[in-house]
Amino acid sequence: MSLTFDHTTLGQRVLFGAGQVAEHLAAEVARLGAERVMVISSVSEARTAEEVTRRIAVTVHHRDVAPHVPIDKANAARTIAIDHDIDVIVCVGGGSTTGLAKAIAMTTGIPIIAVPTTYSGSEATNVWGLTEQARKTTGVDDKVLPVTVIYDATLTLSLPVDLSVASGMNGLAHCIDAMWGPRADPINRALAGEGIRALAAGLPAVNADPTGLPGREQVLYGAYLAGVAFASAGSGLHHKICHVLGGAYDLPHAQTHTIVLPHVLAFNAPAVPDLDHRIAAAFDAVSAVAGLCALQAGLHAPTALKDFGLTEQDIPEAVELILPVIPPSNPRPVTADDLRTLLHAALSGTRPASTVHPTSTAPGNGAHPHPRKAIR
Amino acid sequence: MSLTFDHTTLGQRVLFGAGQVAEHLAAEVARLGAERVMVISSVSEARTAEEVTRRIAVTVHHRDVAPHVPIDKANAARTIAIDHDIDVIVCVGGGSTTGLAKAIAMTTGIPIIAVPTTYSGSEATNVWGLTEQARKTTGVDDKVLPVTVIYDATLTLSLPVDLSVASGMNGLAHCIDAMWGPRADPINRALAGEGIRALAAGLPAVNADPTGLPGREQVLYGAYLAGVAFASAGSGLHHKICHVLGGAYDLPHAQTHTIVLPHVLAFNAPAVPDLDHRIAAAFDAVSAVAGLCALQAGLHAPTALKDFGLTEQDIPEAVELILPVIPPSNPRPVTADDLRTLLHAALSGTRPASTVHPTSTAPGNGAHPHPRKAIR
Repeated sequence: MSLTFDHTTLGQRVLFGAGQVAEHLAAEVARLGAERVMVISSVSEARTAEEVTRRIAVTVHHRDVAPHVPIDKANAARTIAIDHDIDVIVCVGGGSTTGLAKAIAMTTGIPIIAVPTTYSGSEATNVWGLTEQARKTTGVDDKVLPVTVIYDATLTLSLPVDLSVASGMNGLAHCIDAMWGPRADPINRALAGEGIRALAAGLPAVNADPTGLPGREQVLYGAYLAGVAFASAGSGLHHKICHVLGGAYDLPHAQTHTIVLPHVLAFNAPAVPDLDHRIAAAFDAVSAVAGLCALQAGLHAPTALKDFGLTEQDIPEAVELILPVIPPSNPRPVTADDLRTLLHAALSGTRPASTVHPTSTAPGNGAHPHPRKAIR
Repeated sequence: MSLTFDHTTLGQRVLFGAGQVAEHLAAEVARLGAERVMVISSVSEARTAEEVTRRIAVTVHHRDVAPHVPIDKANAARTIAIDHDIDVIVCVGGGSTTGLAKAIAMTTGIPIIAVPTTYSGSEATNVWGLTEQARKTTGVDDKVLPVTVIYDATLTLSLPVDLSVASGMNGLAHCIDAMWGPRADPINRALAGEGIRALAAGLPAVNADPTGLPGREQVLYGAYLAGVAFASAGSGLHHKICHVLGGAYDLPHAQTHTIVLPHVLAFNAPAVPDLDHRIAAAFDAVSAVAGLCALQAGLHAPTALKDFGLTEQDIPEAVELILPVIPPSNPRPVTADDLRTLLHAALSGTRPASTVHPTSTAPGNGAHPHPRKAIR
């Protein structure tokens, strides 16, 4: 089997250390020779931003942050950056805050130092998003990639356990879907595998000891790798399914991802034994599905979409909506029947089952059960 | 245990595909908007360079390449690049050719597209080297990092099997030493682990089928990762030992690396069970040492430094030379006794044995044999 790929590694410095963010930030601002700093945070994280930036001179604090980066807020922030002759943007927060910093960088080229306080992973990507009249536009531009990311797990301690788990599961979905996304390649897969390892180690630790740092550190590190791998590989089958379900039936983002993921994994893994083996190794489990299901069971993750509003009657339409957006890169063909079976299982919360013979790539033979069984 | 690291990811595009180099190069030159191309190759690879560049307009072919980049050859090449108003350098060859391209980029900032024909891995690093009056100077400069690397395994088919194996073993040494080099971090380790996996898969395939592409592709890919991980992590214990042995006793580079590596691995692995586990997984073996020894045995790799000129009498001096250069990052302290034992084993070719209790970090207790035994 020949090895063919096109991988772009994005250049970025990552500084990782609990309790070190203020020192790291001061050193990095000095290294970049920046003198006029714009600090972006949400109002709710204003105090965190003050703490983080206590060792640097701040030209302007900007706190007008909203989800999905509304265009008027982006334009206002751009004007402030230009008017103040800003030479570096420091964003302290989650995806929305990082997103606003990216919107400024996109038109001005001002470099970003990102200080994440959640597990969104957007600080590791060159993807921007803007919302205008309820329509979100996204794009790719290397100018919006933060030059440096400073991780300090103490900043994530205020994130409640349930949100941490949901966000970490989202990261796990990024890693697993990166294995067979449209631009999946061995480098993405290696980073995604390391991300799975870190998230699988960290999430139970956060759950067991919410104020302990080691679990938070592993999840933060795993979420970073999830961002890197997913941005490079692109959306695979899992994200296409969840995107449709979230959009058409208003299902909650995190729970949908959590519930659908094991079913997609059980569907795809038997068709790609090497990836099954790789994911299983990252989980330290006998199979990929076994590893994911054991992790989710330990975290008391939700298992049935019917608990969040999806109904039996929605499935035929969902199948019609999903079929045309399935990436050709998926490791096995996906028929309407396959999707129906998968969605029924996710709806009712039955345990995921592998349904295709590993050596088969032909569609329509879903009747042969795979000997490898999922463990809950 | 807290997670602290400082990792710089170098931005670079990697195009990988057998038989596609000419197409990939033409597309990449067009994407960069380059119009005046300088092609560097050695005289012996002139025909390969002509083939590779057949779809682009070449302003000048430059073939005055020598090992270790002599400063006068670097200056001559720089002058040619400036005189011809070159806007991209395409280097087709191994470490010496890439090194000359880097020397030009260092002073001119002209971007490099690297087309490797060996497994040196230098195309993946921002490290340059220059030789003046028999002294080699090396340094780090992001300007010398090729913007794009184009890998085509068909270009490595002319590399004889023994050289391929030696070069691949060198890559393996880079990956393993990257696990505990001075700047080792989890990202380097993940990439190094993937490199080991690829090299361990590829080398036996190259050995069994020298004209087959799949093995060549895996080794080429693994050597790239080895370059990335090693440049980021820096020289660990293994490279310090080999550097001294090579310099003081004129031992051959590749054989020295091959023979010393299992002994360093057997010495360090028990002190870092997580890394032992990670390397073992990459080899798909029960332990790191077992995996490496099985691979080397299958390749009929040399096992004794006495076969290459090292003598019993050299060991005391070698110990004195190595002791002061041992990196403080090494996972366990290294005493003169430890080094003596290690060098004697490498000299005579006895099988590597782990000699420290995994939980001990105190020096001087080399007398407790570790229960995990190496397999040949």
